Amino acid sequence: MPRLRLALAQTNPVMGDFASNLAEMRRRLSAARQARAQLVLFPELAVCGYPPEDLLQSAGFLQANQQAVADLRPDTRGLCACVGYARRAGSQVFNAAAVLNDGRLAGHYDKIELPNYGVFDEKRYFHPGSRLLLLELSGWRLALTICEDLWVPQGPVEQAILKAGVDAVLNLSASPFHAGKFELRRRLLQRLARRARAAVAYVNLVGGQDELVFDGRSMVFDSRGRLQARAPHFAEALLVSEWTRPGGPRRPDRRFLRLAGPAAPLTPLPRSTQPPNPGRLEEIHAALVTGTRDYVRKNGFKQAVIGLSGGVDSALTAALAVEALGRGNVIGVTMPSAYSSRATRADAARVAKNLGLRLITLPIMTIYRAFTAVLRPALGSGQPGVAHENLQARIRGSLLMALSNHFGWLVLTTGNKSETAVGYCTLYGDMAGGFAMIKDVPKTLVYELAGLVNLRAGRDLIPRSVLKRAPTAELRPNQTDQDTLPPYPLLDRMLKAYIEEGRDLRQIVRRGFKPSLVRETLRRVDDNEYKRRQAPPGIKITPKAFGRDRRLPITNRFRPPRSA
Amino acid sequence: MPRLRLALAQTNPVMGDFASNLAEMRRRLSAARQARAQLVLFPELAVCGYPPEDLLQSAGFLQANQQAVADLRPDTRGLCACVGYARRAGSQVFNAAAVLNDGRLAGHYDKIELPNYGVFDEKRYFHPGSRLLLLELSGWRLALTICEDLWVPQGPVEQAILKAGVDAVLNLSASPFHAGKFELRRRLLQRLARRARAAVAYVNLVGGQDELVFDGRSMVFDSRGRLQARAPHFAEALLVSEWTRPGGPRRPDRRFLRLAGPAAPLTPLPRSTQPPNPGRLEEIHAALVTGTRDYVRKNGFKQAVIGLSGGVDSALTAALAVEALGRGNVIGVTMPSAYSSRATRADAARVAKNLGLRLITLPIMTIYRAFTAVLRPALGSGQPGVAHENLQARIRGSLLMALSNHFGWLVLTTGNKSETAVGYCTLYGDMAGGFAMIKDVPKTLVYELAGLVNLRAGRDLIPRSVLKRAPTAELRPNQTDQDTLPPYPLLDRMLKAYIEEGRDLRQIVRRGFKPSLVRETLRRVDDNEYKRRQAPPGIKITPKAFGRDRRLPITNRFRPPRSA
Repeated sequence: MPRLRLALAQTNPVMGDFASNLAEMRRRLSAARQARAQLVLFPELAVCGYPPEDLLQSAGFLQANQQAVADLRPDTRGLCACVGYARRAGSQVFNAAAVLNDGRLAGHYDKIELPNYGVFDEKRYFHPGSRLLLLELSGWRLALTICEDLWVPQGPVEQAILKAGVDAVLNLSASPFHAGKFELRRRLLQRLARRARAAVAYVNLVGGQDELVFDGRSMVFDSRGRLQARAPHFAEALLVSEWTRPGGPRRPDRRFLRLAGPAAPLTPLPRSTQPPNPGRLEEIHAALVTGTRDYVRKNGFKQAVIGLSGGVDSALTAALAVEALGRGNVIGVTMPSAYSSRATRADAARVAKNLGLRLITLPIMTIYRAFTAVLRPALGSGQPGVAHENLQARIRGSLLMALSNHFGWLVLTTGNKSETAVGYCTLYGDMAGGFAMIKDVPKTLVYELAGLVNLRAGRDLIPRSVLKRAPTAELRPNQTDQDTLPPYPLLDRMLKAYIEEGRDLRQIVRRGFKPSLVRETLRRVDDNEYKRRQAPPGIKITPKAFGRDRRLPITNRFRPPRSA
Repeated sequence: MPRLRLALAQTNPVMGDFASNLAEMRRRLSAARQARAQLVLFPELAVCGYPPEDLLQSAGFLQANQQAVADLRPDTRGLCACVGYARRAGSQVFNAAAVLNDGRLAGHYDKIELPNYGVFDEKRYFHPGSRLLLLELSGWRLALTICEDLWVPQGPVEQAILKAGVDAVLNLSASPFHAGKFELRRRLLQRLARRARAAVAYVNLVGGQDELVFDGRSMVFDSRGRLQARAPHFAEALLVSEWTRPGGPRRPDRRFLRLAGPAAPLTPLPRSTQPPNPGRLEEIHAALVTGTRDYVRKNGFKQAVIGLSGGVDSALTAALAVEALGRGNVIGVTMPSAYSSRATRADAARVAKNLGLRLITLPIMTIYRAFTAVLRPALGSGQPGVAHENLQARIRGSLLMALSNHFGWLVLTTGNKSETAVGYCTLYGDMAGGFAMIKDVPKTLVYELAGLVNLRAGRDLIPRSVLKRAPTAELRPNQTDQDTLPPYPLLDRMLKAYIEEGRDLRQIVRRGFKPSLVRETLRRVDDNEYKRRQAPPGIKITPKAFGRDRRLPITNRFRPPRSA
């Protein structure tokens, strides 16, 4: 009854920081040795971070990858580790896994399936591998794979696995989060385990990298496809698990690379309880907190500044920023104008007070009047229009950036996905900042998350008055968002159909929306690509985010056909 | 002696505007018929524009491609046309060429080699074709190819061409411009003609699409590799040319798709003179003018507004904008501060006068004082620092955007590649605007182009005082760029080595630069990725531009090794 004890190291590398990534991997190897693991798995490209983009075209970066793997060898004495790294061979680069065994490099595997859709550009960088790597360790026959290799059901990798007849499949992964993705992964791996009658170990990256956040949740399945162990979401972890298979030693098979390893420890590992799996809102909440914390920290910032309008978007952003960075590291700024109601001013102050934030008040009217006086000869003295509305937003953006420049605070913008989609936002105004935390969160979900924040706090951190008020930009008297936009529940359903599901005008109308409303909404999305192109990065939490996930030309006259 | 008269239609499609693209193609077909051409070639994806990016994932967009090709059939009576379009077959999309012959669709070719590097992402969208399309028309045996197919010397397409034994190779192309690219293309095609002992017809797109500009310069080679005809650079054209080959009719060969076509007209085409080939500066000049004109026009703008500082960057931008749009469509704005010298103010006015521009003066000091008064309690009353410098730039950006919002003018920013590279520019300040014309033009080249502008005008449109003054941002007293940056000739050589040539610290130092200077320069480039990510698009004119051509993570701690 050969047993195999394995440790899945769910790490959070910093892009390109080889020294700190290696130090972390050494700590994990040491802990795995203490836990008497025979096999340690690190995620895809764990050595450098994922995705390195054009850093993969730098000889120095590739050299550093190679060096990191070489430097890690001594730390693998007495065990076996599979480590994701970028491997250069001549003019070709591979998305590879090094197999380090007892202090030496025993072999490597090159990823065969390279994803080149959505947020992925792997065919820009990597040459595909051509054959599976089969390993034998302590009486276990293993197939080593990397991420996408298993995402092509009945593809060449799966076929090779079935043909080889292995006891277990190992998968090193860097699978970005979106809400609901975990369940896709779980089903995919379960299905493979059942088809191959093999155990499966899946180790995923954790942490934020620009627009992407990785949720971890590494998993171990037994050969009947039962989920045997799972690591936590959005936290680093070393998940130790153990497999036992019936039968004794097998006759040697030259297709398998034999690795040296101690036998499994005498006492079997007790079954551990799995961490609770978060619900939909909880996982999105954790994604936003993690993505923000990592963007701030990995870019060398400590503190962040947020314009508090008294509305729900900025209140949610501030509440989540406090969770990510600590209340002492978040500064609120309220920038009232003549159009700010007493109620929203009070709410901005209340949000700051509830969250325990320092609040800076910078009234904008003197600046606004100075602007309009200078502009009057050019613009004429007619009614204030969109130029004047945007001016107020840009004054606020400039004030926040002045604080950022002076104190080194990162500006967090507060725009949600609904307004980003239809361009209900001001370039260089409320869009000015380093990171757009809730950029991929539709307005209706903003409210749900605000509810969750209050629920978790056990009190109304985000005041009820904020949640109940009709959304308003307060850039002219008595303005509300619904002067210009359809009600958000309606808008968000249309946007989801268009952006996330790729439906066209006709298909959306068929769901019961008014054709003119759909046409106008889609037109606004199409027309505002130029704004989004200059937006700060934000965290992808849906299946299709703006940014690297959805790449449209700015110059684009294609419009859905008139008839619907 | 079979003769073949062919017409290369060098068109400038508007992305997704199928109706206008088709109308233009019909005009070209009609002109080709008048010129008694038997074969008409249109560029790669001529029907929709290049590159459509994620529009290729829209069913409606693909449907419109298919429809456009179908609609074009009647216009091909009595001749043969090869037309680039996106072809959908089941779930696969191909970068294809339709062969329209005498009013019907005779066949199609699917591009085999899909570029997925630099500015290209074709593997994200297209499935590769698998075999060459061979045609026979009026006694000529032809191989039809698309762009990249010929850019893999001794690759599978070239081998198939050599094996087939054809009289001529046709290539539909969408090859983006950078300075010097034409010569690469010319040599590549000449080499192919000689190896295959075949004539070559190469038709290229012309015009701007976001960051890319296409220079046209379609070419016809005879079977000895001699350039026989060339279309102009950066202008639409129909290039009519004629091939004659020795020998009579051949026995039928079933590998070749036989097309119906009239014999060549009785009178051979007289040899035409080729348009003069522009020098390096001239072609860059034309690229900037064309790219700007097309961005403005294709996005529905008529007029552009430019902040005139009295410096060379804004003077050049204004001069080129006048060439692109006409002087009546360019508005200059001067926004003096307390740090603006009398000399630069005078120069801003002189540039506007020389170019015949309307000039609006918007002094910023009252606004600046209003800002500093509001900020003083938060920032304290210490010496003005970078926050105050950026504030001035942001006030100017907000003023230009107010004019843009009010009048519908597109803001052209004036930042060059050198300052964009090292971050010597202000987000939401001088970087605020819709299009960054000279974003890929290094500062030293800005001066060269300014010289060319004056030379072409026959007078100092850009005043000598502007060209002679030490560059300055004028954001604090007596500031010059060289307080902070190395002299531009030095800086630009380092930047070229790092960005365009991909050299690392060590290699650049070996060229004779001071290690500390190189290290500091490279660090500045790396640290300012976040600024560039929010920059407006601009025209690629070098082999490696910022933007879609160079994709680096913002979160990135990889730095060149300390020792050099």
